[in-house]
Amino acid sequence: VLAARVAERESQIVLGLDPDPGALWPGAELAGSANGAPADRAAAAVLHHCREVIDATAEACVAVKLQLARFELLGAPGWAALEEVAAHARLRGLLVIADGKRGDIDVSAQAYASALFGGCETPFGWLPGLGAEMATVNPLMGVDAIAPFVATARAAGAGVLVLVRTSNPGAADVEDLAVSGGGAVWERIAEIVARLGQDAAGETGLGDVGAVVGATEPAHLVRARELMPRAVFLLPGVGAQGGRVEDLAPAFAPGRAGGLITASRSIVNAYLAPENSAAGAGAAAAARAEAERLREQAWALSAAPA
Amino acid sequence: VLAARVAERESQIVLGLDPDPGALWPGAELAGSANGAPADRAAAAVLHHCREVIDATAEACVAVKLQLARFELLGAPGWAALEEVAAHARLRGLLVIADGKRGDIDVSAQAYASALFGGCETPFGWLPGLGAEMATVNPLMGVDAIAPFVATARAAGAGVLVLVRTSNPGAADVEDLAVSGGGAVWERIAEIVARLGQDAAGETGLGDVGAVVGATEPAHLVRARELMPRAVFLLPGVGAQGGRVEDLAPAFAPGRAGGLITASRSIVNAYLAPENSAAGAGAAAAARAEAERLREQAWALSAAPA
Repeated sequence: VLAARVAERESQIVLGLDPDPGALWPGAELAGSANGAPADRAAAAVLHHCREVIDATAEACVAVKLQLARFELLGAPGWAALEEVAAHARLRGLLVIADGKRGDIDVSAQAYASALFGGCETPFGWLPGLGAEMATVNPLMGVDAIAPFVATARAAGAGVLVLVRTSNPGAADVEDLAVSGGGAVWERIAEIVARLGQDAAGETGLGDVGAVVGATEPAHLVRARELMPRAVFLLPGVGAQGGRVEDLAPAFAPGRAGGLITASRSIVNAYLAPENSAAGAGAAAAARAEAERLREQAWALSAAPA
Repeated sequence: VLAARVAERESQIVLGLDPDPGALWPGAELAGSANGAPADRAAAAVLHHCREVIDATAEACVAVKLQLARFELLGAPGWAALEEVAAHARLRGLLVIADGKRGDIDVSAQAYASALFGGCETPFGWLPGLGAEMATVNPLMGVDAIAPFVATARAAGAGVLVLVRTSNPGAADVEDLAVSGGGAVWERIAEIVARLGQDAAGETGLGDVGAVVGATEPAHLVRARELMPRAVFLLPGVGAQGGRVEDLAPAFAPGRAGGLITASRSIVNAYLAPENSAAGAGAAAAARAEAERLREQAWALSAAPA
């Protein structure tokens, strides 16, 4: 699914939606009716904002990444808005990545996986779940915390993105610990990812167990590709965190869909940049331009080798 | 808060609520009106079930642990039910532990923490959040993934329970990796927990940064207590997973509130055990008896040394 969509849209850009109710696009606040509980009003405004951002940038993107934390903050109305944002993204031809970094075992992992991917049958009828095409998963608890997500995703034709080496400074505290016998903790996690994805690599050469690998440290990216030759990489950290698209070539070794570059605030808040503010660029126009700039850069970088 | 509550209720038992819509207490299904969407009906039944379980066992418990995965599976109505279950638990004098094992950084961690603990101010008004007294947190991404939870919890008078050494077999895959220089990954995480909780140990000698430590391996518990002398331990794995209350004494070294023993299915499904089925014990009576049995056992074990 992913490889075809990347080819069709000629994009590896993932629009990160991370809506802060206090920093929505101008006008979004009006969508929240003046009456109603704060959470309902905030959720209406967030939904409006997300739809606008999607409409502005969808052409340059292949997927949206929905930061679940921001929706949970709004409680039940937030979860309803999350479902509507996902539906709207699909309407615009985008895949949906649920960024919840869930990790648990057994029936709890199964419940998370059903909630995010395929839904489940209950005595009360079918619960559809979010229907995400991909979801981020935290591997700390080990293989039995990842496997239920992989199985459920596989059954639904979806994929899993395991946190392997994240882009934050704190990654040094646990992920980078050196393991006796060689390598770092994150490299062991990478080996688990490679093993779990092994059976499922389709014609495209890409498996359905991918990895989150920060774009901030190019050396890690090379090593990650060695360890996970067929994994899709979700690459956060471009822009605000200092990662550069031109350093991401190793991600595309297995093909153009081998790397997904996620950008959130650098797209959504492009209109606040000094050069755009001065030009009076509207939020939508600035976001579209930034997404298109990233798209062109990544697409050129990932051109299949001759 | 926790130490006082433990003393007042003479209990260290945490009721784990993990409601499977397909295995609720007899009669709960009727609470879901015959009309309405499946998720609404399932959420009504789950809410009814959780209230009944709380009413049956509250006297023997000090807290409920709500498995967020099960509520998320029900979408927006599930999140609403979660809030109502938390409110009902409080009404019965129980503390609320949100078991979501969240882990993320920066504004996302902040959003999760606000959603679970203290709420936050927005242009649309105050969002109250779940108001949990404790929440489980996944430390894989490092200190910057834990710190926002700790800060928000501290401001709200709540506490954090960091996954340190879980009770599942997969814990061997990452948590148990030997680190060069000595110790296992989980021991390094334990050191982080001890450090983050250091400043906040109150008169009771307990800090506000606790740890999830599986009850299945007593040797780990001894070592965990060495590394985290003032942390509250949440102890899963008693019952179904093979952990035994009598092995948990090291948890109580800093005081009676040093260990919280969580039991989910062993309490809720006690009525399905052969001896209870044969006796025709109702679900509520069997749950109450099992919770009380655990309470007595733990309370006796944790008696302050002479």
